[in-house]
Amino acid sequence: MGDMSHSRYDEILHYLPKLSKRMKEQGYVSDRNFEARKKRKMNEEEEEKKRKMVKNLLPNKQIVLNQSVSGYPKESDFGLRSSFINCRLSDDSSQAVLLKNLYLSCDPYMRHRMSDQVAHPGTIIQSFTPGSVLVGYGVSKVMESTHPRFKEGDFVWGMIGWEEYSLITSPDRLNKISFTDVPLSYYAGILGMPGIAAYVGFHKICYPKERDCVYVSSAAGGVGQLVGQFAKMIGCYVVGSASTKEKVDLLKQKMGFDEAFNYKEENSGSALRKYFPEGIDIYFDNVGGRMLDEVILQMKAHGRIALCGMISQYNIEEPEGVHNLFSLIMKRIEMKGFVETDFDHVYPEYVEFCIKYLQQGKLVYVEDVAQGIENAPAALVGIFYGRNVGKQVVCIANE
Amino acid sequence: MGDMSHSRYDEILHYLPKLSKRMKEQGYVSDRNFEARKKRKMNEEEEEKKRKMVKNLLPNKQIVLNQSVSGYPKESDFGLRSSFINCRLSDDSSQAVLLKNLYLSCDPYMRHRMSDQVAHPGTIIQSFTPGSVLVGYGVSKVMESTHPRFKEGDFVWGMIGWEEYSLITSPDRLNKISFTDVPLSYYAGILGMPGIAAYVGFHKICYPKERDCVYVSSAAGGVGQLVGQFAKMIGCYVVGSASTKEKVDLLKQKMGFDEAFNYKEENSGSALRKYFPEGIDIYFDNVGGRMLDEVILQMKAHGRIALCGMISQYNIEEPEGVHNLFSLIMKRIEMKGFVETDFDHVYPEYVEFCIKYLQQGKLVYVEDVAQGIENAPAALVGIFYGRNVGKQVVCIANE
Repeated sequence: MGDMSHSRYDEILHYLPKLSKRMKEQGYVSDRNFEARKKRKMNEEEEEKKRKMVKNLLPNKQIVLNQSVSGYPKESDFGLRSSFINCRLSDDSSQAVLLKNLYLSCDPYMRHRMSDQVAHPGTIIQSFTPGSVLVGYGVSKVMESTHPRFKEGDFVWGMIGWEEYSLITSPDRLNKISFTDVPLSYYAGILGMPGIAAYVGFHKICYPKERDCVYVSSAAGGVGQLVGQFAKMIGCYVVGSASTKEKVDLLKQKMGFDEAFNYKEENSGSALRKYFPEGIDIYFDNVGGRMLDEVILQMKAHGRIALCGMISQYNIEEPEGVHNLFSLIMKRIEMKGFVETDFDHVYPEYVEFCIKYLQQGKLVYVEDVAQGIENAPAALVGIFYGRNVGKQVVCIANE
Repeated sequence: MGDMSHSRYDEILHYLPKLSKRMKEQGYVSDRNFEARKKRKMNEEEEEKKRKMVKNLLPNKQIVLNQSVSGYPKESDFGLRSSFINCRLSDDSSQAVLLKNLYLSCDPYMRHRMSDQVAHPGTIIQSFTPGSVLVGYGVSKVMESTHPRFKEGDFVWGMIGWEEYSLITSPDRLNKISFTDVPLSYYAGILGMPGIAAYVGFHKICYPKERDCVYVSSAAGGVGQLVGQFAKMIGCYVVGSASTKEKVDLLKQKMGFDEAFNYKEENSGSALRKYFPEGIDIYFDNVGGRMLDEVILQMKAHGRIALCGMISQYNIEEPEGVHNLFSLIMKRIEMKGFVETDFDHVYPEYVEFCIKYLQQGKLVYVEDVAQGIENAPAALVGIFYGRNVGKQVVCIANE
């Protein structure tokens, strides 16, 4: 994970005016003794150093968390800060990279980091500090590198700041992009975290086989659309749910789902009974809560439930209770939570598979691309209302 | 599963008095014509047949469900019926066995069968009909058999009626007992369904390894006491919970649990944090509901939860909600329901393992044995109040 330490540049910036003032004052003092000369010389050298540094400073717009969020996030929970970043790595920055950020990924899990005092050890989830820059998955270009694995001009994806430029002092977990004959934004989606989540969640957690009946919730999202397509590839029957007619149509017409329904207009229980008259073998859960409770009742014996996310629960104070767990016994159901970062070793295999099918046109990926860092908060807030159609990303710069 | 069809004997019994009366009446009629003689002769033959049948009838006390149960079962939900059973298999009973029942097993899952209109396809759970004899696991001696696999004098365990004698017309699923150098009641417990449930639930569902931290709820019950001992055998740290001081002492002193607590006197969350300062690797759940919800919070990353039973939920109208399922994602927890009948193939391996350790004194089994079929309802009701100390069985006859 990238370590976002911009604080020393901020410090310098704040310190500079004071320093200049002091030095100017000292310049008026007559050169009466060696100590004073020595002091002035030192100050001049220091000033020169600072001057160089200022020359190297680039304006850097950043999205910061204004305050911890409760309930649904709102745009006013975030602020746009005009900051500066040093565009030359200092000599002592061993193994760092300076990035120009191109795409930011809006992901539901980020909601947890907006809450106060949340920490899930061993995962990327711990609270953002109010006032600090948001951090999330994104795609960037390397401007400068003192890390042997990266060089200027490389494209990477991984954890970056929600800002125009990021200094990553521990870039070990950044992924170098070697295949660039796809939209680079794909590395915030199908070729990034959501893609690997869909792939391992479906193939490594659900043990799918031909003719399995698969249900995917939040099916038009960055993960769901892929799960459905992966399931079709191996001959499953696939049904998805989404929150608008537009998305339902997309699932059926573009992504090859056998059926899809609008869970806001159709009762989920009835819809599931209609589309799965013999029950569900695999449920890929992106929403949790009441939907999960209902699906458990519609599962077949020996069914598998992959818990990928629970977006229906993230903006409410008390999580909803799931009441039907006894059915897990009677139906011998396996329900398993997973975090895609446990499957980094699968990534190379996945990318190869994915690029092949993308090139053959057998896999499609729908993105919802917001433009400009100023619009990033609205895009992020939007995913919790289902406003995005496809994977939500924010384009903040071109290569 | 045994098919309990006593209805034809009941019919005959009810028919007999009417028949005798009619024949006596016919005896007073003067022998005036052939038709009448012929009719009388036929009736005499029939009577002789009935007489023989009556001679073969054995009194058979049975426990019947008086009415569908809601809430906690009470003794008055059950009745003791004096019936009769034919103690000679008729010639057309192909492949049947007549059993003298010795032990009845009182198991929590039976609660579901007492409710109205419950059916879990593919499992043994479907509602008893009010007025019908209860059916459950038990241990019996074969009195007569027309099935090639069984002969008079054999001991068997499996699904039998809650009655003194049972006619099993499809005995294929009865298990022949070959090792009798243990209390025969063990085949209703450690060497029967609860034993195999504990064994497969722990070894095949929880993937245990040395030094895993294992928590067992309802730990002094027929299943829990074994899970704890199996876990100790492979070097786990084991903590159990139970409802009385007597049971807690038993767990620690007799069954080798590292720690145990009374969940009625100690807050479960505090107790779990105290006994598992670094969290729980394996939870063997016999109770469900609030305890399960609390345990999820105390699990370690990559923990496993085996759902064996949910006795805390069986007597309440609406199952409690489980709110902490999001933690299953963050902790990558696998929660799996299982039914021991899926693991019949493991039984031979299990029995061998179990008998070896019983003989070496490295495995103990505590039973709570009620005496007499009349006391079976009280024993059965008692398990839902935790009145049993150890596995609850009812002895209804000696060999």
